[in-house]
Amino acid sequence: MTSLITNSRKIVSEAVGTAFLLATVVGSGIMAEKLSAGNVSLALLENTIATGAALVALILTFGPISGAHFNPAVTIADATQGGLSWKVVPGYIVAQSVGGLGGVYAAHLMFGQGVLQVSTHVRSGGSQLFSEFVATFGLVAVIWGCSRARPAAIPFAVGAYITAAYWFTASTSFANPAVTLARCFSNTFAGIRPADAPGFVAMQFIGALAATGLFRWLTPSLSRTADEILVPHPDQIGVQD
Amino acid sequence: MTSLITNSRKIVSEAVGTAFLLATVVGSGIMAEKLSAGNVSLALLENTIATGAALVALILTFGPISGAHFNPAVTIADATQGGLSWKVVPGYIVAQSVGGLGGVYAAHLMFGQGVLQVSTHVRSGGSQLFSEFVATFGLVAVIWGCSRARPAAIPFAVGAYITAAYWFTASTSFANPAVTLARCFSNTFAGIRPADAPGFVAMQFIGALAATGLFRWLTPSLSRTADEILVPHPDQIGVQD
Amino acid sequence: MTSLITNSRKIVSEAVGTAFLLATVVGSGIMAEKLSAGNVSLALLENTIATGAALVALILTFGPISGAHFNPAVTIADATQGGLSWKVVPGYIVAQSVGGLGGVYAAHLMFGQGVLQVSTHVRSGGSQLFSEFVATFGLVAVIWGCSRARPAAIPFAVGAYITAAYWFTASTSFANPAVTLARCFSNTFAGIRPADAPGFVAMQFIGALAATGLFRWLTPSLSRTADEILVPHPDQIGVQD
Amino acid sequence: MTSLITNSRKIVSEAVGTAFLLATVVGSGIMAEKLSAGNVSLALLENTIATGAALVALILTFGPISGAHFNPAVTIADATQGGLSWKVVPGYIVAQSVGGLGGVYAAHLMFGQGVLQVSTHVRSGGSQLFSEFVATFGLVAVIWGCSRARPAAIPFAVGAYITAAYWFTASTSFANPAVTLARCFSNTFAGIRPADAPGFVAMQFIGALAATGLFRWLTPSLSRTADEILVPHPDQIGVQD
Repeated sequence: MTSLITNSRKIVSEAVGTAFLLATVVGSGIMAEKLSAGNVSLALLENTIATGAALVALILTFGPISGAHFNPAVTIADATQGGLSWKVVPGYIVAQSVGGLGGVYAAHLMFGQGVLQVSTHVRSGGSQLFSEFVATFGLVAVIWGCSRARPAAIPFAVGAYITAAYWFTASTSFANPAVTLARCFSNTFAGIRPADAPGFVAMQFIGALAATGLFRWLTPSLSRTADEILVPHPDQIGVQD
Repeated sequence: MTSLITNSRKIVSEAVGTAFLLATVVGSGIMAEKLSAGNVSLALLENTIATGAALVALILTFGPISGAHFNPAVTIADATQGGLSWKVVPGYIVAQSVGGLGGVYAAHLMFGQGVLQVSTHVRSGGSQLFSEFVATFGLVAVIWGCSRARPAAIPFAVGAYITAAYWFTASTSFANPAVTLARCFSNTFAGIRPADAPGFVAMQFIGALAATGLFRWLTPSLSRTADEILVPHPDQIGVQD
Repeated sequence: MTSLITNSRKIVSEAVGTAFLLATVVGSGIMAEKLSAGNVSLALLENTIATGAALVALILTFGPISGAHFNPAVTIADATQGGLSWKVVPGYIVAQSVGGLGGVYAAHLMFGQGVLQVSTHVRSGGSQLFSEFVATFGLVAVIWGCSRARPAAIPFAVGAYITAAYWFTASTSFANPAVTLARCFSNTFAGIRPADAPGFVAMQFIGALAATGLFRWLTPSLSRTADEILVPHPDQIGVQD
Repeated sequence: MTSLITNSRKIVSEAVGTAFLLATVVGSGIMAEKLSAGNVSLALLENTIATGAALVALILTFGPISGAHFNPAVTIADATQGGLSWKVVPGYIVAQSVGGLGGVYAAHLMFGQGVLQVSTHVRSGGSQLFSEFVATFGLVAVIWGCSRARPAAIPFAVGAYITAAYWFTASTSFANPAVTLARCFSNTFAGIRPADAPGFVAMQFIGALAATGLFRWLTPSLSRTADEILVPHPDQIGVQD
């Protein structure tokens, strides 16, 4: 019962945090496009700065409660190394997906748009798919690389990484299956056509697992210490009842 | 008597800090609009970067003295959890309001404008009100989320959060009743028509209290440790006489 | 003799650090203006980002050696509180002035311009003077506010403060007599007409001393601990022979 | 054998990290130029922000494994002070060069360009060469200045320094022989004509050694502690088998 309550907290934390992440990605995209009068370069810069900054704030905020994954690929990578019990993985992924959708809807409401939308933004082709592989490989590399020696730097490292990855990948670096799913339901600057989502998601999981494999070899103590790291888990800082 | 002096210091700290915050919000808005020749997107980006950076500097500077709330919604949220005595709440709110107005006037002086102004900038409608609820909910969530496990990161978390929230909300995220009041008295880029202020302020308090309720459940140790956290209070670092 | 050598190190550190600061201010101004094709708003944003980032890097680099003042107003404020011996103040100020000029000349060389220039950029009037008072008051407030409780955050606080102050003051926040002097000798984006410099410098010293007075009252332990703080001095981290 | 495996890890870490650095420099240059419709100023700002942010993330990630040099000039400067054994220097430099090239090719693939390219971007003349001397002098000064007193700040200091140096040097601050070599093979925004590379590389090594000499005098404990610092080396945090 206690652990049920504790897990509820983690799951609500993942849902609320992912909602704010998606509200940022989609909302700042709407605002930037609206103000930029066709200057897509400036709009993407604004979208980037908002998203990178939000990640810093949200990981600092929700990290101590649930690890602040906000990302099924990170959750599964963590579980493969024993950082998170497989039993809570489904709850995490549902929370991230539902929360992400809620964040998209909140953004639509804040900007006075119809809530229910489906994106028609085409993002297809091998370059886009390879971009998502690279983007997620890098994201998970950053998380594993920092988690052992500098866990307190993870919010800054992830925020900085995504800021860069918006620009160095052709796909603007979704790097997150829950984000990809949610962005299918916004026909705005940040949207993605549902038909293009499965390829993105597949490459994201492959990239995450490849980076996990590399860092298992690069840092042999990874698997032994996974359950102490990634991002501090609630049980280590006394969140349970 | 000693505590009267100590409280004077806290109150002056809140007033001076809020003055610099408003001088930044209003002054950088004037500068950005003046230089941007109608490019509102670029002007808002500059206004955002200045505001986010100022928050980092000001919370680092005034946090050790008064907690660096600069915000009646944060002050009241802190008081509900026992972090701040209710007796000093009125002084804090007066200091934030007067300081904010002083900051607006200083900005007008620095840019050679008439000091006394009233804004005609319309910011009304349900989307704006919902935006202020979300903005303040998120701000207070960030503060409570960091305050227990990572209080030293609050200046960076709040600066990063507001940087994002300028873009992901339709209202550019006032998220602060003292800021809202002060911005009524500047008929410049950052202004708000006085008629629209009460709705903003109401949503800000509701958002702040909703986030406080959520984090009370998410982090059960919140109320027990509130008086040690939010932002370090002066009595913990030996500011008193 | 030992202390002579140690002081030489501090003085060279101030000179080299101030040179890089001025090379950044002037050089990034030249680059930004050259590329921006008349978009002054974008040019100032780029000048701002370069300067704020440089301050973070340079204070982290030279702070452990000389305190990384780079600024006679800060040096004198520090000396009034006993943080720096009055005997080394002249050396610091000469180093900052000569280093600043060297940085301007290096920028001219890097951009293929004539080395010797005198600015014709008019920056006069009460608004400009009041701006410099506010800018330097805020800078010294940030330094004193952080120095007691969070000295390790000073590089980030100062970088963030100047990033904001470029935009919230009408003068773009020189806030530094050595910077003001050096910028007289560059007839580029960042220049200032020599005739306008004395007023700037006077307001900078007044602002610095006013902030020092305020923080002496706000944080009574300031004078007792000044010699341990501002920025860590070399003698505390074993730089001497 | 053990040390062979350990060195393999360091070398792979340098290769993967340098690959991501070059993918960022070249990829973000392609994206920024494509979106910016001739606004070179905005494109360079985006290229800058992506590169500075990537450096923060990558040094945090790979620093604990290999020191995150990504730069033969840094590797050699470190070796001259005993921080890195001369025996591993060739492996580091090969890894940085090969990894850098791999990153360029990955960027080309992500953006659907032909993989094999040679740059025709002219970057010649005394101003460019002096810029590279200043840029690398400053970079190595930042590393040595932080390494003794604040090694944990190096990722932020280097990211901030390069953000500034993109703008205050006429060459946009390559400051890295492996980066220079790799950028010869991309005929895009960030490219450099192979004929101009040797001059750049020579000035980079001269700048790195000059800064090392200066800091040996400025901080006499440098050589005694070099093997504990620069960036934490793997042997200090238990990466070996």
